[in-house]
Amino acid sequence: MYIIGIDLGGTNTDIGLLGDSGVVLARKNLKTGRYFDAQSLVNAMVEVITKLMFDNNIEKVSGIGIGVPCGNYYDGSIDDAANLNFRGKTPLKTMMEEQLNVPVVVTNDANAALYGEMIFGGAKGMEDVVMFTLGTGVGGAIATKGKILYGSDGFAGELGHSILFPNGRKCTCGNRGCLEAYASIRGIVQTCAEMLQQYPNNELARIPISELNPKTIADAAHNGNPVAIETYRRTGEWMGIAISNAVVFSSPQAIFITGGILKAGDLLIQPAKISFSKHKLYVYKNEIPILTSQLNENDAAILGAAALSNSKI
Amino acid sequence: MYIIGIDLGGTNTDIGLLGDSGVVLARKNLKTGRYFDAQSLVNAMVEVITKLMFDNNIEKVSGIGIGVPCGNYYDGSIDDAANLNFRGKTPLKTMMEEQLNVPVVVTNDANAALYGEMIFGGAKGMEDVVMFTLGTGVGGAIATKGKILYGSDGFAGELGHSILFPNGRKCTCGNRGCLEAYASIRGIVQTCAEMLQQYPNNELARIPISELNPKTIADAAHNGNPVAIETYRRTGEWMGIAISNAVVFSSPQAIFITGGILKAGDLLIQPAKISFSKHKLYVYKNEIPILTSQLNENDAAILGAAALSNSKI
Repeated sequence: MYIIGIDLGGTNTDIGLLGDSGVVLARKNLKTGRYFDAQSLVNAMVEVITKLMFDNNIEKVSGIGIGVPCGNYYDGSIDDAANLNFRGKTPLKTMMEEQLNVPVVVTNDANAALYGEMIFGGAKGMEDVVMFTLGTGVGGAIATKGKILYGSDGFAGELGHSILFPNGRKCTCGNRGCLEAYASIRGIVQTCAEMLQQYPNNELARIPISELNPKTIADAAHNGNPVAIETYRRTGEWMGIAISNAVVFSSPQAIFITGGILKAGDLLIQPAKISFSKHKLYVYKNEIPILTSQLNENDAAILGAAALSNSKI
Repeated sequence: MYIIGIDLGGTNTDIGLLGDSGVVLARKNLKTGRYFDAQSLVNAMVEVITKLMFDNNIEKVSGIGIGVPCGNYYDGSIDDAANLNFRGKTPLKTMMEEQLNVPVVVTNDANAALYGEMIFGGAKGMEDVVMFTLGTGVGGAIATKGKILYGSDGFAGELGHSILFPNGRKCTCGNRGCLEAYASIRGIVQTCAEMLQQYPNNELARIPISELNPKTIADAAHNGNPVAIETYRRTGEWMGIAISNAVVFSSPQAIFITGGILKAGDLLIQPAKISFSKHKLYVYKNEIPILTSQLNENDAAILGAAALSNSKI
């Protein structure tokens, strides 16, 4: 049997066709931002799914799993995702099932990424895990006793909107000081831009701010640029505090950090480890490793969404 | 059958004898701070239990449940509780069972209070709840799907040590900026004392700082003292942020705040409600009420410890 896993993000929508034992047989990408309403994005996804099936000579898939920011596992909707073009309650599951005669399951993209890691990746065999996904937004997911924590309304684990600095930076959610305002793509660029105001002679100051991104900053850091290195060091320091706060909540065995920003690798992970070891509450005697995904960057979410669809592959 | 529930706190140890359907038949109090090592406190508790049974003509109890800061449900020990005189790992369950031929269960005091509220109090019928206990320390407890969240090593829910203000006030745990440094007895007194340095003519400045406590401050607030009112307003504001951070973690149906400090009532709860409604992430559409315990102030922990002992009453 075959199954479709979809990672619907603020920037990219990755659609994968999975075969036996979770192998991604084929995948296609859509640029999410090009679709200004939910129906046209749904139509585009349906078209891609149909094409993926046709190209691979597949007549039937057993299920579709979709991981999406603010995806609600309980009712299959997207609720006011801050990083998507369409607001309000989007009944994604219903809209997809209207066009494809296949059961659709919707979940938060970060939950899907964590589940993918637990079933196919570096968290295999772990029961209590916390994941942070750093990208356009900052997502979070919590597993306890092997199950994703959904809470009373399906939206547990929104770690990107835990408040790290009361009265701090404006966040897209309307609050101030959320982790997302510091550890997302936008947050990292802002940290760098703020520092460049203090160091206007730094080489990075020659690049227009609109062209600064985690990759340009990471490249500069790898070339020894002190502002770029310090940008990642601060981000890591803040992540270490966010991690120690996650640990006092759910006491996980391990923390996973994933997402495109992780291409910066040790630039961010090393300071996060130092900061976490400084801030970790003394009652936690076990080592709680900070790990990165062992799955291909975009596969985790696709695999997780597929796995969470509860369909047999 | 009868059961013993014990609330072992930094200041008081309350020992209750419970009869059918969770009625507290008799109780005794010990001043925890008078016992400088674990063995002498255990001996005193055993003596009280024996006396409670003798006085009430009871020959046998079916179990003993103990709620204590840093109590570990998994191995029955106390691990380095910051607010007790004895550090290191104290095998409380074993020490008690050596003297009394009765099964003993140890859990975190806040977990016990939450479980008491869920079985006997205002959280009856709720499945997803977060509790903050404000006292000598600040405790926390999280229930998901009707069960207490223990995490990988038994210490989930240590919400008092989530970092509210990075690089903020020194906390007893060694970190800086923990919620406990702001919302415990000591935290509230410090908030008031810091404000009195700015307002040396305020009536409260006449009281030696060593005599300031949540009750004197609450009394002054009820008499209209602006520094006292503002002390509780700020504490409530901070609690509102801590609550909104707890909500993004586990998406509860309700938040409970309990503990001696709650005698201040609306002085703290009203600003906490205002702050929570300001900081609550928009994705949570349901009302998430902030509630106080519906159990007698000290009964919640006793009842919860007894209930968590898993013994039949």
